[in-house]
Amino acid sequence: MGTTSLKIQAIGFDADDTLWHNEDDFAATEDAFAKLLSPWADTVEAKACLLHTETRNLSLFGYGVKSFTLSMIEAAMELSSGAIDSATLGVLLQRGKDMLARPAELLPNVARVVEELSRSHHLIVITKGDLHHQERKVQLSGIAHHFAAIEVVAEKDTHTYERLLQQHDIDPKRFVMVGNSAKSDIIPPLQIGSVGIHIPYSFTWEHEKVSETQREREVGEHRDRFFTLGAIGELPDLLGQLDHAA
Amino acid sequence: MGTTSLKIQAIGFDADDTLWHNEDDFAATEDAFAKLLSPWADTVEAKACLLHTETRNLSLFGYGVKSFTLSMIEAAMELSSGAIDSATLGVLLQRGKDMLARPAELLPNVARVVEELSRSHHLIVITKGDLHHQERKVQLSGIAHHFAAIEVVAEKDTHTYERLLQQHDIDPKRFVMVGNSAKSDIIPPLQIGSVGIHIPYSFTWEHEKVSETQREREVGEHRDRFFTLGAIGELPDLLGQLDHAA
Repeated sequence: MGTTSLKIQAIGFDADDTLWHNEDDFAATEDAFAKLLSPWADTVEAKACLLHTETRNLSLFGYGVKSFTLSMIEAAMELSSGAIDSATLGVLLQRGKDMLARPAELLPNVARVVEELSRSHHLIVITKGDLHHQERKVQLSGIAHHFAAIEVVAEKDTHTYERLLQQHDIDPKRFVMVGNSAKSDIIPPLQIGSVGIHIPYSFTWEHEKVSETQREREVGEHRDRFFTLGAIGELPDLLGQLDHAA
Repeated sequence: MGTTSLKIQAIGFDADDTLWHNEDDFAATEDAFAKLLSPWADTVEAKACLLHTETRNLSLFGYGVKSFTLSMIEAAMELSSGAIDSATLGVLLQRGKDMLARPAELLPNVARVVEELSRSHHLIVITKGDLHHQERKVQLSGIAHHFAAIEVVAEKDTHTYERLLQQHDIDPKRFVMVGNSAKSDIIPPLQIGSVGIHIPYSFTWEHEKVSETQREREVGEHRDRFFTLGAIGELPDLLGQLDHAA
């Protein structure tokens, strides 16, 4: 850890599956989708069609629950060859609305850790997805006041991180990003010279999955700035060590 | 105009119905919606139900085409008391996808004006709505490279403008906002000390409508910083006068 030569200036937090549960809600809705479509397809086929529809629509729709809901309706029509009744489509629409309405459920120790770190560091939420829904979740989370900024972005690539850090006057070498997705939260920050702290979540969306081999390769030379934690509760200790080593 | 005492530092542009056509596409889709629902409701009733559904869903969905599409599907089920067939719902979904896929059609003279102003001023797009769709429209517009930043926000209120100007190091007194919505583009900037240039569009979404009386009252004491133009082609002349008077 001695290679980190400057004190931490700001900490970025991914939101979904880092600060609060998210993917499990999608997984439960996918199960309900498969059950509703069981007259026309088995579970594996139904879920595969949904994922395929989501992926096909991604460049048009972007991320988030509204995109997912529209893709559920489209996939349901496709799987049933148009035979599905509108009441069942109404159930899918309502599932989407329920997902949007549900307040974010914080992961264990998040409230304590964020409160503690906000006393000594500049904290920023950096999250992908639907602007309105993400801002709404942050506002209802009860921890919004600990963050200096909430940045909702269309893609989390090196270009996005560079733009955000520049905008907030943060030196990439003194920036730490914390998140559950190696692809979105860890590899791009490592590539621009920041520290990446990976806290895996129990579910990973297919679209965010990277193989162990791929992750190893991409982390590669940045290994001295890459850390993995089992849970967010361990974060203050690690950051303390990083700041101490600086 | 002599009361504007400092040279213009940056110009903010609304996007929908200021840089490109937008509301007319919604209006055409609303017509198609009413036609599809004609077995169950007359045009006035169908459009009223759609607007009511959109308004009811606004706090949950936020702005944009995906929200509009979900509300169309919901309103169609409501108007037909669930009797609508899934194929017709599929047509509504496809209308929404067509709206998302259609490249933004620039309003007359926008390309010339934006190019000209970008040579002397810092230009920023400040737009409400769906992050992914707005960024996509800007990228496909052919004029993206003239803007220093694209800011997609959940609401355009004084708080949002203050935050953005602070973030970009812009003095509110030296900021000019250009847009078609008095409610979102003009009144909040006037209230924080900026210049507001209103360029009305032929359609205004019900939700953005403010009465003449209300607008007059809100513009009120800020009248010396409020301007109305017939079209964006007149903008460089007005800005030249403002800079000259400074």
